Amino acid sequence: MANSPSGDSMAERIVRVISAFDAERPAMPVATLARRAGLPLSTAHRLAGELVSLALLQRTDSGELRLGLRLWELASRSSAALDLRQVAMPFMEDIQAVIRQHTQLSVLQEDEVLFIERLSSRGSVSNFAKVAGRLPLHISSSGMVLMAHSPRHVQEEFLDRHQSDPPPFPAADSLRRQWAEMRREGCATLPGVVDPDTTGIAVPVFGPQGSAVAALGVVVPRGKENTSATVPALMTAARGISRGLGTDSAEAGPRYGGGAGAGD
Amino acid sequence: MANSPSGDSMAERIVRVISAFDAERPAMPVATLARRAGLPLSTAHRLAGELVSLALLQRTDSGELRLGLRLWELASRSSAALDLRQVAMPFMEDIQAVIRQHTQLSVLQEDEVLFIERLSSRGSVSNFAKVAGRLPLHISSSGMVLMAHSPRHVQEEFLDRHQSDPPPFPAADSLRRQWAEMRREGCATLPGVVDPDTTGIAVPVFGPQGSAVAALGVVVPRGKENTSATVPALMTAARGISRGLGTDSAEAGPRYGGGAGAGD
Repeated sequence: MANSPSGDSMAERIVRVISAFDAERPAMPVATLARRAGLPLSTAHRLAGELVSLALLQRTDSGELRLGLRLWELASRSSAALDLRQVAMPFMEDIQAVIRQHTQLSVLQEDEVLFIERLSSRGSVSNFAKVAGRLPLHISSSGMVLMAHSPRHVQEEFLDRHQSDPPPFPAADSLRRQWAEMRREGCATLPGVVDPDTTGIAVPVFGPQGSAVAALGVVVPRGKENTSATVPALMTAARGISRGLGTDSAEAGPRYGGGAGAGD
Repeated sequence: MANSPSGDSMAERIVRVISAFDAERPAMPVATLARRAGLPLSTAHRLAGELVSLALLQRTDSGELRLGLRLWELASRSSAALDLRQVAMPFMEDIQAVIRQHTQLSVLQEDEVLFIERLSSRGSVSNFAKVAGRLPLHISSSGMVLMAHSPRHVQEEFLDRHQSDPPPFPAADSLRRQWAEMRREGCATLPGVVDPDTTGIAVPVFGPQGSAVAALGVVVPRGKENTSATVPALMTAARGISRGLGTDSAEAGPRYGGGAGAGD
């Protein structure tokens, strides 16, 4: 994103203001906002005032700025994320009732995994995934299983974009091998990658066009994966979500124990 | 909102474009968007193109426009709605496990109830509340219990704004009586108001400043309210949410069976 406001359209500036807020910095004074959005203070001041009057921003009790509830409402009420979530939610609750650990739903966005929903039990293991938060694709079981079920050319384009990423980014051949295995197994299991004490396990959710549109996953204590129970439970729930999205059962994905799966 | 675009700022136009999408019309061609946003077709066309390039809008497979996942992500990742939701979620799951019907969390917004979260069981009764959807305050147990626990001047300002609303909007004296009783009881029970077959039951959630910041409610089959079990369960969960928000237990609200409660 350009650091100079000159030449930016007003829409771009508004996006930069909204993008300045995240889970780590949900509220800030206007000077911080100007810096994070790369805008002159006077511009940030004027724009913030206008966005407050439109309720896209709001002021906290201490006078800082944060995103307005109205923005969340407008963005959420017809969101594709919430459509997917609504279909998935009862099945996620089933998984959570059975596995009693974090259950999460995610999609691919720009080489990262974007978490749409997460259910947690009190007493679950730690989990770095947040609702509306992201993780790099290659460290997330959800991201890996989604890429494993993507067309070969999408995988190769991903590898091209990251070919000069230094370690710990994995070598291309290692990723290709992992994807092939995940595709055969119909699931991804990543022990101790994000956190040494936990394992991520994820399966794909297939949409009506037969492509993997989302991942359903759990985060469980490492060494207690119990994959022979967890994976079939996840696959069962994922098929339920696929059906809810209008996908024919026969197209809804692999069976436990591997097998042919879709060809490349 | 003015119907003519002349004199509108760009920020206002963007809000009008985003506001044109809702749960009933999540996707539309640009001509419909122009009409719903009150913009000339050429303006809508240009603005939609720019918002697509910024990923605030996206095109569907059939070429219609809808809100982009990126907008949901930006609006959600630091949202006050999701902060509240995250604290409330484990307690909402407890309620749902016990009551097995719709469980919902809401806040007041401009004389309406805005639903932040809703958990449903398959087989629950029908429910008109949607996540990021609204209901008029006076027909919702959540809205009524929130207004019942608002300061007297907020109640009177609400009544002033609605004094010429025709029936079925209730008479001011009837609302004042209901609010007084709900405040005494610490809960609102509205049988058959939104739907003849269901009853809404809601209790307030108190924030650190001692004011009611949200409502926790359930929608249950009418005639099977079992309030002597439902209300204490809701109050217990609401106190847990209050504590999670940093509220001292002693300030966390009324006890079952009524009692003094806070004075006006």
